[in-house]
Amino acid sequence: MANEQLVESFIKLIESSLSEAFRSDLSQLHTEGDIRTYLADAFLDRERLKEKVDRLSELIHIGYMLSAEVRLKELLLLILDKSKRLMNADRSTIYLVDVDRLHLKSMIATQLEIKEIIIPIDSGIAGACAMTGELINIPEPYSDPRFDKNIDKLTGYVTRNMLTAPLRDKLRNVIGVMQVLNKSGGPFDEEDERLIRLLGSFASVSLENAMLYEAQETMLEKFFESLAAAIDAKDPYTAGHSARVTDISVGIAKEMGIEGEELRQLRFAGLLHDIGKIGVRDEVLRKPGRLTEHERMHIQEHAKQTYEILRRIPFTKSLEGIPHIAAHHHEKMSGKGYPDGLKWHEVPLGSRIISVADVFDAVTSKRPYRDPMPFEKAVDLIENGAGDEFDPEVVKAFKTYAYRELKGQMNAG
Amino acid sequence: MANEQLVESFIKLIESSLSEAFRSDLSQLHTEGDIRTYLADAFLDRERLKEKVDRLSELIHIGYMLSAEVRLKELLLLILDKSKRLMNADRSTIYLVDVDRLHLKSMIATQLEIKEIIIPIDSGIAGACAMTGELINIPEPYSDPRFDKNIDKLTGYVTRNMLTAPLRDKLRNVIGVMQVLNKSGGPFDEEDERLIRLLGSFASVSLENAMLYEAQETMLEKFFESLAAAIDAKDPYTAGHSARVTDISVGIAKEMGIEGEELRQLRFAGLLHDIGKIGVRDEVLRKPGRLTEHERMHIQEHAKQTYEILRRIPFTKSLEGIPHIAAHHHEKMSGKGYPDGLKWHEVPLGSRIISVADVFDAVTSKRPYRDPMPFEKAVDLIENGAGDEFDPEVVKAFKTYAYRELKGQMNAG
Repeated sequence: MANEQLVESFIKLIESSLSEAFRSDLSQLHTEGDIRTYLADAFLDRERLKEKVDRLSELIHIGYMLSAEVRLKELLLLILDKSKRLMNADRSTIYLVDVDRLHLKSMIATQLEIKEIIIPIDSGIAGACAMTGELINIPEPYSDPRFDKNIDKLTGYVTRNMLTAPLRDKLRNVIGVMQVLNKSGGPFDEEDERLIRLLGSFASVSLENAMLYEAQETMLEKFFESLAAAIDAKDPYTAGHSARVTDISVGIAKEMGIEGEELRQLRFAGLLHDIGKIGVRDEVLRKPGRLTEHERMHIQEHAKQTYEILRRIPFTKSLEGIPHIAAHHHEKMSGKGYPDGLKWHEVPLGSRIISVADVFDAVTSKRPYRDPMPFEKAVDLIENGAGDEFDPEVVKAFKTYAYRELKGQMNAG
Repeated sequence: MANEQLVESFIKLIESSLSEAFRSDLSQLHTEGDIRTYLADAFLDRERLKEKVDRLSELIHIGYMLSAEVRLKELLLLILDKSKRLMNADRSTIYLVDVDRLHLKSMIATQLEIKEIIIPIDSGIAGACAMTGELINIPEPYSDPRFDKNIDKLTGYVTRNMLTAPLRDKLRNVIGVMQVLNKSGGPFDEEDERLIRLLGSFASVSLENAMLYEAQETMLEKFFESLAAAIDAKDPYTAGHSARVTDISVGIAKEMGIEGEELRQLRFAGLLHDIGKIGVRDEVLRKPGRLTEHERMHIQEHAKQTYEILRRIPFTKSLEGIPHIAAHHHEKMSGKGYPDGLKWHEVPLGSRIISVADVFDAVTSKRPYRDPMPFEKAVDLIENGAGDEFDPEVVKAFKTYAYRELKGQMNAG
């Protein structure tokens, strides 16, 4: 009786604490045990929800970070790092389905690099996940026939539990697999499964975007290369010139510590430096021997033409220097070059680099009216031009690079 | 006394329901009132957490959807729609900071289109948010001096509450503003503020990606245009040829119901169809009068050259037809064209379209040895070629398009 009263008081107390919507729950409670269970569930539910809010918030932050990274290598590193943390795992691996769809490229982060190992698509748990598109949760690998213990034997790593989820593109094709190992505090549960699926969605869409972006960049780059080759090939004596000038320019630039997007801009400017030749008459371009003053004027037009063709292109921020760099590869430090007679630092650094590479390739190439100049003599010629024609800093870097990289090549060829 | 015992029993019951970590909470409880408050808080907390999990899950889904959309227009529509839903709002507007940074472009979704209105950046709440980068929550617009009631007067809309948040790019620059109006069930609260910030992050990064993607595409497109113009300009008689052929080809294609990515591929192929002329000697290209058999062979090389230049480019999926389409614009339905003597459906549809546009532009352009052909005569010529030289379906679409769009232009010009 006293107990019945107690239960009644409990229920009244709870009732007064609950919002309207939940009061009907109380009709289920009859004993002290019922009340205990009801409260325990409510408190546990609250704890789980708190944890869930934390993990979802973390996932949102990670999803944002992944979306913000369009460079493929950096993105892979980010996915590997974030998936490990979010899933409380000890290791994380991404497997990408290869273009042939017969292999997986396994990506493992080692400090700031990515190690790529190619395995057949029908191997292991990752392979099974890639082929079926099903998530695979293995709480006890050593008593699971799907798990191959030999891998642990080879690597010395002890796999205590593993969760493997497919990465799908927008069209739901499997483009890879995300695998996390050894969750701290026991096997992965259903909540982990839900979470890795969501993380996998963000990883997939970001990878897809990065690949699209990279494909677009490659398309542009290969177009520049193909075009440069076509222009050079009009004259058998200049075949391959733009590609060689580009390689030498990149070599000099690296020697000078130029890298990243600036190096890429220089590379493109190198490929495009003679694009203005599209507008120069062949009979002048290919004339054997000395040019008349008028012909010289016409051939000098190609630098202006290069600018005219390139200036119409809305290059993205990191490439916006291309028209100027490409167009000024015939300027001289003395101001006696063309097309604008710019002096010293008025000439973009990239142009100063291409200018050295351009002259070096021209004099060491065969022409109908002369033999190619030997390597040492050509380097001397460049060195003698330092200060008047060329930037001495560029010449210095060129010389170091040329003796290290070009001498052997040229004497062999 | 009885009450003290009751309180003690309550506390014991709660204690047995709580997990270890929360038991210390109980030392704060002394009266029935304390317990009531404690339980009410716990139950309310659970309800709030549940709601939060729901909204975060929805946000994750929306974040994924936004990340997956790289087309700018579609993305804006998606942001407008999803922000309205997630924020329980009646209206949503996106304002993008213009390139001049002096204006905002206001984007309003009207069914499946986007209406753009340009306003000065210092106007209204959106402007204040764009300039300061601060979130602005206005629970009661009509008693808030920052709100301009005239806008409601003009539009007839009654603003009951509004929340305005900045959109920031990866470098934290404000690139726009997201504004939601009239939350159902009262003003926006702190939870809404947190949520719109997170949504704004996803919207910003997706917008930035889409803009980058669009910038890259535009770069490629403008490069094709500039190059085509340079090639055509070598010969004053062909100046503007590639651009005109492209316009006419697009006109025919639209008439045939071609759209989207296929139309874009055709447009690019049109611009690039004569790129192989880079490899053709000028004296042949510009020869007045009839060509010798040998010269004809050489000029026919340009179609092959077009293919050679383009085949090296790893075009993305939706553009991969370009090399074939561009290279086969001189094939004939009879199989007597060049470079490969393809017949009928062996010739890509795009090539069949460009072929008609190419011949029409050639015959209606002036040449040193003949006057331009009048419009009607040129259309007749194309029509007479249907079946033997041209695809009759393409000719039909061309005729409709030409009489509607080209006749007026040409008679005027």
